[in-house]
Amino acid sequence: MSDVALTTGTPVNELFIKMAVDAWDTQCTRLTKLFDALSDEQLAANTAPNRNTGIYLLGHLVAVTDGMLPLLGFGEKLYPQLEKPFVTSADGSGAEYPPVQELRKYWKEINAKLSGHIAATTPAEWFAKHAAVSAEDFAKEPHRNKLNVLINRTNHNSYHLGQLIYLKPKK
Amino acid sequence: MSDVALTTGTPVNELFIKMAVDAWDTQCTRLTKLFDALSDEQLAANTAPNRNTGIYLLGHLVAVTDGMLPLLGFGEKLYPQLEKPFVTSADGSGAEYPPVQELRKYWKEINAKLSGHIAATTPAEWFAKHAAVSAEDFAKEPHRNKLNVLINRTNHNSYHLGQLIYLKPKK
Repeated sequence: MSDVALTTGTPVNELFIKMAVDAWDTQCTRLTKLFDALSDEQLAANTAPNRNTGIYLLGHLVAVTDGMLPLLGFGEKLYPQLEKPFVTSADGSGAEYPPVQELRKYWKEINAKLSGHIAATTPAEWFAKHAAVSAEDFAKEPHRNKLNVLINRTNHNSYHLGQLIYLKPKK
Repeated sequence: MSDVALTTGTPVNELFIKMAVDAWDTQCTRLTKLFDALSDEQLAANTAPNRNTGIYLLGHLVAVTDGMLPLLGFGEKLYPQLEKPFVTSADGSGAEYPPVQELRKYWKEINAKLSGHIAATTPAEWFAKHAAVSAEDFAKEPHRNKLNVLINRTNHNSYHLGQLIYLKPKK
């Protein structure tokens, strides 16, 4: 791999981190644009008959993104109270949701906070273990690192983006 | 990063290739399990009212995965005839679709073929440019490599998996 690093002038580990972070940013930006384009009424609708509402998925994505803070060693969750209604419980559980305008704000806030931490994370830190794997397991499975969490959460965002896009009126 | 490689015994470039390939495999396996669980009738349905049918998305994912062969330098497409009905055209365009049983076979065939090539690709090859970027652009943007194609296509698979899951009857 030294050839690659020498040719491009970018160490290969930095290159890979850039690729993973770019993919994360791309999906977050798409979600933010979609949330901004949808009215409160559109977000209140089901993404398909009997399927999750836009509000539930917004709350779910806020809660899961918030959970990345402790998982990646970036600090405590900002909104631990969202875990129960949007992760532990299914949509329509009867759990009370915050007003959608609040959830919209939380989405931007948590993503901005996470982006700040992401920008300050060194290559060595990305390849260190995340908080939900033991040191013993990590020694055997070194791919269970912080960057892997980011890759998997990017796919989680894409999965729900594919559903949320159904809230947009079809041209 | 040498500390990481020394600690784990796995060179860091091999580690992140494994992470990207694992993520690809995970999404492909989920899609395959879902396709296998759905009947032909279920696949013929719309994923949501007025949205893509399961058959269209199956054909779309076959065609896009097939397109990765030339893009990654693995050879020619197996089914170039799927580009028009499933990539260039929207669902309901009137384009003729192959029988769903054929598309099911193509899905497994193209994924098995791609997996074989993926397993045989060296770290240096993953960080080489893909076929749709010029040498000049690649010199300036070395992240536009083959591994980046795999990462982006993994998210594309996740996006449509989120939609295809709506074909499963809700428990």
